Amino acid sequence: MKTIPLLLAASAALLAAGAHAQSSVTLFGVVDTGFARDGGSVASVQGMSNGSNASSRIGFRGVEDLGGGLKAGFWLEAGINSDSGGGSTNTSTDNLAASTVTNSLQFGRRATVSLIGNFGEIRLGRDITPAYANELYSPFGPTSVGSDVTLQANLIGQTQLRTSNGIHYFTPNTLGGFYGHLHYAMGEQPSVPDVTSDNGNYMGLRLGFKRGPFDIAVAYGKIDIARTAPAAGVSNDRSVASIVAAYDLGVVKLTGEVQRQKIDNTVNAGFGNAGTLSVGNDTESKGFAIGALIPLGSGSFKVAYSRIEIENGHGIGTEPRAAKFALGYVYDFSKRTAMYTSVARLKNSRDRNGGGTLTAAANRVSGISGAVTGVNTSSTGFEIGVRHSF
Amino acid sequence: MKTIPLLLAASAALLAAGAHAQSSVTLFGVVDTGFARDGGSVASVQGMSNGSNASSRIGFRGVEDLGGGLKAGFWLEAGINSDSGGGSTNTSTDNLAASTVTNSLQFGRRATVSLIGNFGEIRLGRDITPAYANELYSPFGPTSVGSDVTLQANLIGQTQLRTSNGIHYFTPNTLGGFYGHLHYAMGEQPSVPDVTSDNGNYMGLRLGFKRGPFDIAVAYGKIDIARTAPAAGVSNDRSVASIVAAYDLGVVKLTGEVQRQKIDNTVNAGFGNAGTLSVGNDTESKGFAIGALIPLGSGSFKVAYSRIEIENGHGIGTEPRAAKFALGYVYDFSKRTAMYTSVARLKNSRDRNGGGTLTAAANRVSGISGAVTGVNTSSTGFEIGVRHSF
Amino acid sequence: MKTIPLLLAASAALLAAGAHAQSSVTLFGVVDTGFARDGGSVASVQGMSNGSNASSRIGFRGVEDLGGGLKAGFWLEAGINSDSGGGSTNTSTDNLAASTVTNSLQFGRRATVSLIGNFGEIRLGRDITPAYANELYSPFGPTSVGSDVTLQANLIGQTQLRTSNGIHYFTPNTLGGFYGHLHYAMGEQPSVPDVTSDNGNYMGLRLGFKRGPFDIAVAYGKIDIARTAPAAGVSNDRSVASIVAAYDLGVVKLTGEVQRQKIDNTVNAGFGNAGTLSVGNDTESKGFAIGALIPLGSGSFKVAYSRIEIENGHGIGTEPRAAKFALGYVYDFSKRTAMYTSVARLKNSRDRNGGGTLTAAANRVSGISGAVTGVNTSSTGFEIGVRHSF
Repeated sequence: MKTIPLLLAASAALLAAGAHAQSSVTLFGVVDTGFARDGGSVASVQGMSNGSNASSRIGFRGVEDLGGGLKAGFWLEAGINSDSGGGSTNTSTDNLAASTVTNSLQFGRRATVSLIGNFGEIRLGRDITPAYANELYSPFGPTSVGSDVTLQANLIGQTQLRTSNGIHYFTPNTLGGFYGHLHYAMGEQPSVPDVTSDNGNYMGLRLGFKRGPFDIAVAYGKIDIARTAPAAGVSNDRSVASIVAAYDLGVVKLTGEVQRQKIDNTVNAGFGNAGTLSVGNDTESKGFAIGALIPLGSGSFKVAYSRIEIENGHGIGTEPRAAKFALGYVYDFSKRTAMYTSVARLKNSRDRNGGGTLTAAANRVSGISGAVTGVNTSSTGFEIGVRHSF
Repeated sequence: MKTIPLLLAASAALLAAGAHAQSSVTLFGVVDTGFARDGGSVASVQGMSNGSNASSRIGFRGVEDLGGGLKAGFWLEAGINSDSGGGSTNTSTDNLAASTVTNSLQFGRRATVSLIGNFGEIRLGRDITPAYANELYSPFGPTSVGSDVTLQANLIGQTQLRTSNGIHYFTPNTLGGFYGHLHYAMGEQPSVPDVTSDNGNYMGLRLGFKRGPFDIAVAYGKIDIARTAPAAGVSNDRSVASIVAAYDLGVVKLTGEVQRQKIDNTVNAGFGNAGTLSVGNDTESKGFAIGALIPLGSGSFKVAYSRIEIENGHGIGTEPRAAKFALGYVYDFSKRTAMYTSVARLKNSRDRNGGGTLTAAANRVSGISGAVTGVNTSSTGFEIGVRHSF
Repeated sequence: MKTIPLLLAASAALLAAGAHAQSSVTLFGVVDTGFARDGGSVASVQGMSNGSNASSRIGFRGVEDLGGGLKAGFWLEAGINSDSGGGSTNTSTDNLAASTVTNSLQFGRRATVSLIGNFGEIRLGRDITPAYANELYSPFGPTSVGSDVTLQANLIGQTQLRTSNGIHYFTPNTLGGFYGHLHYAMGEQPSVPDVTSDNGNYMGLRLGFKRGPFDIAVAYGKIDIARTAPAAGVSNDRSVASIVAAYDLGVVKLTGEVQRQKIDNTVNAGFGNAGTLSVGNDTESKGFAIGALIPLGSGSFKVAYSRIEIENGHGIGTEPRAAKFALGYVYDFSKRTAMYTSVARLKNSRDRNGGGTLTAAANRVSGISGAVTGVNTSSTGFEIGVRHSF
């Protein structure tokens, strides 16, 4: 069979490209598939998981040097359900909900165009929010059975993670270790009626400082949601604030987080399974997480403990709490390929009216669902898989 | 991390490809994202736009030299909503409507295989129609707030633009400046019942002549649609005809179009918002557009005026008219990257029974919707963005 | 325009890649589009077909050498409706049905990650089953009007072809001509209720022997489906077994198959159009196929005859039979590009209560549908197209 060079548009001479090495387009991705078991106290489920160590994806990105210190870049990244071949991470065009299309391939993880210079980076399109970026410090990441419960039980749903229609500003890496990320996204609602015209608008901020082995950052994010019933126009805004820190001692990397989430004037909290609260009361949660990553030969051990509770569920007389303990090991065949396994146990408690537990959200096994855990009981998760990057 | 060459199927030696430079596969695309405002007289909307300067997309195409002057080629091109990461330009398998799947990535812009030789090109699959190809002359293109109203207010909808199940013939470029494009597409309806068996069949033709700075072309397209009610079997066919010309004087490139659209035996015209017309009467429109592109240093100014009106809306006693004036500027950082901005004003008039205006269709801001403009009032559009090609 | 090398993630020096030729990522695909006619005895349909010679697709695959004889690999392959640009081969996450999303691009043909060594290959994710792999011996393949009726009229639907959530083991090619493929896939149902907890679990096996021009293989596959009504918990499992052989004499390659399909305790057989059978009786079919591929110059002739019948449709007193005869020719412009044409005639018989024929499933023209054939009558198929690989 003939050998055919893959070219970029209008490129006539790939092999003469040496002089333009500053401009490039990159194909990249991850296929991470394994076996997982989600053991609930009422019903369990097992199956093939995807993305437990790193979210399965495929993407295209590139940078062009415009001269004078200015660069342009693009990034298109689609999530993949690597156990079934479908797409994941569906997009929302109004930042209020995930799209209802399932299994469809979309650049829902990131779709951006950037201008980059001495001033930093201006980035336009769909990407993760500063608040979510702040939560990616954990040794287990966001999609493992061992992921922190602070991340998996979130008040503000889809939009805690990513927004469409966004403008991002990132500081340059010339500020002596300080870094920042400012973000605004639009819900694109008509100006009439006024009560819902701000729906889906999102603002977020992240500020951090990194020097040598030490890294600390704070983040805040808030999405505008106007309540249409029973009290039309009353704010139902949702917000999250967090402080995270990491200290790399060489033999171990320690991480920690303190997090606070809030829904204004809650009618239905939508807080995992936390049930319906009264009008006029805010729902708040506080949570924290600590973790350690211990390199050992070609692999690394991981351990994490995290806890979240609804702080002031006025009107229902309950403050449900979930705590998770997780252990994991990753063996690196190469920089691109690894095997991994994790176990986790989640304990629900203090739910005094049976309104629900945080289990479903918090003990999720990526790629499979269906396990059921009773009020104030515990569940377990297990996963083993292969992660391959390209 | 290792460096890994990206190869085509069964290619073992990319770097030895020099001898086969005649065969290639190309990855290409556009990410074009910006901010846009659609100011209606009743309600406005603002947000991130996509594809205002050039439709956001990603594609794969290639040509293989078969020897003896014969070549084979393929082209797969998917539209992208670059502000949200979803797919755009959904496909219709019967040419009668757009698919209802939204945000799903599809090769809806083009999916073709070609045989190319001295005889010209035979192209099979989904692609733009000759009539739509004829409308792409305008300085603002098809997806800007400044796009000609003749293109944005179209009678024959989705299929004016692209057909599935098509056969295309293109003349070779050896005819002394003359060029032609002949097209037939199938609706793939069963032979029983006979009345609907031709539904979705499309035929189109484009003929042009280009010499030096001068280019002129005529095009015609028609889609078969049988009316099933109230008069079953009566033709509801839709057609468009246009003449376009461009003259490049160096300091300015002038463009112009005259266009005529028609729906046979209209029940519901489907003409933008033009409302319901009587049975037994055709709906026709006539429109024209003029434009100028003025290069200036690293950028270019654009100006355009276009007008469309329903000519004989028998039975409703109205001949609604929309006219648009647009100004724009594009600054080219490089051949691949540009910033742009445009403003446009659309004036609706002569709608004597309030059946509707052409505003919604004609003053569209790519990527956002929701603005409302009242009968016989005006609306404005604004956009600013970054277009990056790869 | 600048020339920009396409790189893999974090690759800084594509042109220095010679030393890593053992690791590669490959972009590959097929665009196969043509004209087809499906002539039923009641209604016919014609239009553009896709994938008649080889299923249209686009994919990304790669292999990484991990050292010590161990390799890692990934494979992502999406089906394409090349006549309309949409996606095909939608994924099912529970192995019980195809996804309802249509036209959406998905890696539904294959999405796997593999570890490969002297022990053979462990492959995780979505891929074809051993039983389906065994049926791909035929000269017409699975998507032509000439495809064997044993493949097109299948009892066990989608899951005869591919499973999600699967684990595959392939023997190494060091067993003196013997080869094997062992497969298990999970339906990922909750453990409660017990009656449906095994739904969608699939197991399959293929064993073969190849020496010189001779190749023979047997395969078996079975999917668990619990019946929920009228007799809850009674098995509705579906299975298929087949023996195929091929002998390449040089001037002609002969192929043959014997196949048996079964649905346990049938309520609704779901066997093509075979209609409803009584509770408590199994539905079985037996079929066979013979074929020949005759190379001639730059092309090859193909001929095939296949037959399938419902063997023991207890309770309805009928044993419908379908037999197909097909002729085809393929002309190869190059290894990548070919033109092809095929004709086929399908004869239905012995359906004594009009419950249905096998026509719809068996005389399918890829990409178009709508032809209707009456009980115990015949239908014809015709196709001509271009297949281009990259």
